[in-house]
Amino acid sequence: MTNEEQLTRVELKAPYLIFLGTEPEKKHAKTGAGIAHWRPDLCVGQLRLPGCGVDLDLPDMTPAEAAAAGAKSFVWGVAGFGGVIPPEWTGNLFDAVDAGLDIVAGTHSSLADVPGLAEAAAKASVSLIDVRNPPANLPVGTGEKRSGMRLLTVGTECAVGKKYTALAIAKEMADRGMNADFRATGQTGIMIAGSGIPIDAVISDFISGAAEALSPANDPDHWDIIEGQGSLFHPAYAAVTLGLMHGSQPDVFIVCHDVGRDVVDGYPDYPTPSFETLIAQTIEVGKLTNANIRCAGFSVNTSSLSDDERDKYLSKVTEETGLPCVDAVATGVGPIVDHLVKSFN
Amino acid sequence: MTNEEQLTRVELKAPYLIFLGTEPEKKHAKTGAGIAHWRPDLCVGQLRLPGCGVDLDLPDMTPAEAAAAGAKSFVWGVAGFGGVIPPEWTGNLFDAVDAGLDIVAGTHSSLADVPGLAEAAAKASVSLIDVRNPPANLPVGTGEKRSGMRLLTVGTECAVGKKYTALAIAKEMADRGMNADFRATGQTGIMIAGSGIPIDAVISDFISGAAEALSPANDPDHWDIIEGQGSLFHPAYAAVTLGLMHGSQPDVFIVCHDVGRDVVDGYPDYPTPSFETLIAQTIEVGKLTNANIRCAGFSVNTSSLSDDERDKYLSKVTEETGLPCVDAVATGVGPIVDHLVKSFN
Repeated sequence: MTNEEQLTRVELKAPYLIFLGTEPEKKHAKTGAGIAHWRPDLCVGQLRLPGCGVDLDLPDMTPAEAAAAGAKSFVWGVAGFGGVIPPEWTGNLFDAVDAGLDIVAGTHSSLADVPGLAEAAAKASVSLIDVRNPPANLPVGTGEKRSGMRLLTVGTECAVGKKYTALAIAKEMADRGMNADFRATGQTGIMIAGSGIPIDAVISDFISGAAEALSPANDPDHWDIIEGQGSLFHPAYAAVTLGLMHGSQPDVFIVCHDVGRDVVDGYPDYPTPSFETLIAQTIEVGKLTNANIRCAGFSVNTSSLSDDERDKYLSKVTEETGLPCVDAVATGVGPIVDHLVKSFN
Repeated sequence: MTNEEQLTRVELKAPYLIFLGTEPEKKHAKTGAGIAHWRPDLCVGQLRLPGCGVDLDLPDMTPAEAAAAGAKSFVWGVAGFGGVIPPEWTGNLFDAVDAGLDIVAGTHSSLADVPGLAEAAAKASVSLIDVRNPPANLPVGTGEKRSGMRLLTVGTECAVGKKYTALAIAKEMADRGMNADFRATGQTGIMIAGSGIPIDAVISDFISGAAEALSPANDPDHWDIIEGQGSLFHPAYAAVTLGLMHGSQPDVFIVCHDVGRDVVDGYPDYPTPSFETLIAQTIEVGKLTNANIRCAGFSVNTSSLSDDERDKYLSKVTEETGLPCVDAVATGVGPIVDHLVKSFN
């Protein structure tokens, strides 16, 4: 068995050259922008082609220049057009391989489908890493209690800030000198963190085991801040949420929500749950693997509200629940970390 | 896109020649015995090698004889030795391919790994079907309500009779002239039913969608009797159970249990839940996709009790819950079907 086969996480080699292609708009360069925002220390430079309208404030470099500056991976930082790899960009992939860089992507069309690229990568002894592919050796869950503290972000539905909130909490903890790691469960999170498991791509039988492998036993004061997926109230993805929760054995969870969402996106017959309902059900099912699971706060996207409305909304939730309620972007997550420090020291 | 790519279920061609190899003991021929027991109409014959101690009461045939008698598939009916395909048995696989039979197996080692077999199958235009592999084209769940009635068996843990109970209920309904189908979610069930989806092998994102595809919209009086998997109280497999439940949208569920089990097998820290707890949580999470979900009875393996103890146990559960409680093997499932007929007519 090779080393690669034994891995239970996707692992990327840092630092990175971020590839932005000819992407005109920053909103389609979320992955690259996310890496540059959260992990500037991992970014050596950016590679932009003529017409590119995105600037991550990184030095412009060719793959060869990036390699000379220490880069180990060429990271595909744009959504592209329908997730495909435009043929006119593939020359850059070969340049990267020739420069000795791994190529990291989560595009819908596979790197392995670019004619000749797999052969070139093999010849150059570099890897083509698709962050959508889970590692092959995931174990079945054991349900055994592990040392260390764990926080999981849960949502009233998908795309309500679970990744952002987890990243912000991990950063706030690190800034305070706490012992904490962000644990990525989706492709963008994995590219930001440099490792992780795309949990929704794991075969169902192994999902709890994958979550256990993602946040292994650690020091008693160490916090794993785990990126949540889906929602217990999502008719398609609740199983992903549950498996991740059972394997994560979270001590606390943070409820993420977007005030602008009354129904699950794309599922008009499914209203988003109330905080009370979501908390009750999360505890009810989460206590199977951690009897002490509890809610430790709320992280709400209030971008559809005015500043005044936002303040009122956040204060009201805190008054009603006795727990911190933040907008991770607008107010930061300081109050949540304050609460955790106070509760667990 | 070919026809095969569009399939959302594993589909087998009946009737079958059941292969039993040199298996000395019936308990290791569960798959073959299960098919012969539940679907004798699908069995043309059995193929036994010298030393085989199992007899399914079917005519002994070579693959060529079976093909001449109308057989379409050679079905691997034994567990074998650690799930591997013994080299001395592979000649029979080539004989089957030469006779124009598909080969169907769920062994741990893959049919595709038998040297030369894939090529021989391609040449003979027959298929090598691994019932552990889900179809490629599974959709994401929609959560939309479908017509027809659905029953799901749920368990206090794994291996407590969920498949047997579902098969028995589907047979009892068919015997009464009701409009019912058994829906298989595991490899043995699929071989018995001739079609199905190995739900625990489905990628997590698609598990609810797979369950929706397994029991599509049907006549209002039609019953899908769906084989449950895992348990909501299993620390490794609860996600499988939940995804199957959300996609199945069961109108009713039957609680399956083994009176001899106090803890989850292999998980000594996880007690099996009380009926009350299991029913409450099943309704709590199941109502997301079917607001009217309810328990319609109990199917308990009481083989560790005396006849007298069994009678007392089954009566006590019925007295306490007002719902039928059977031992599907010892007493049959008639009272459960009686209850369903009475409740939904």
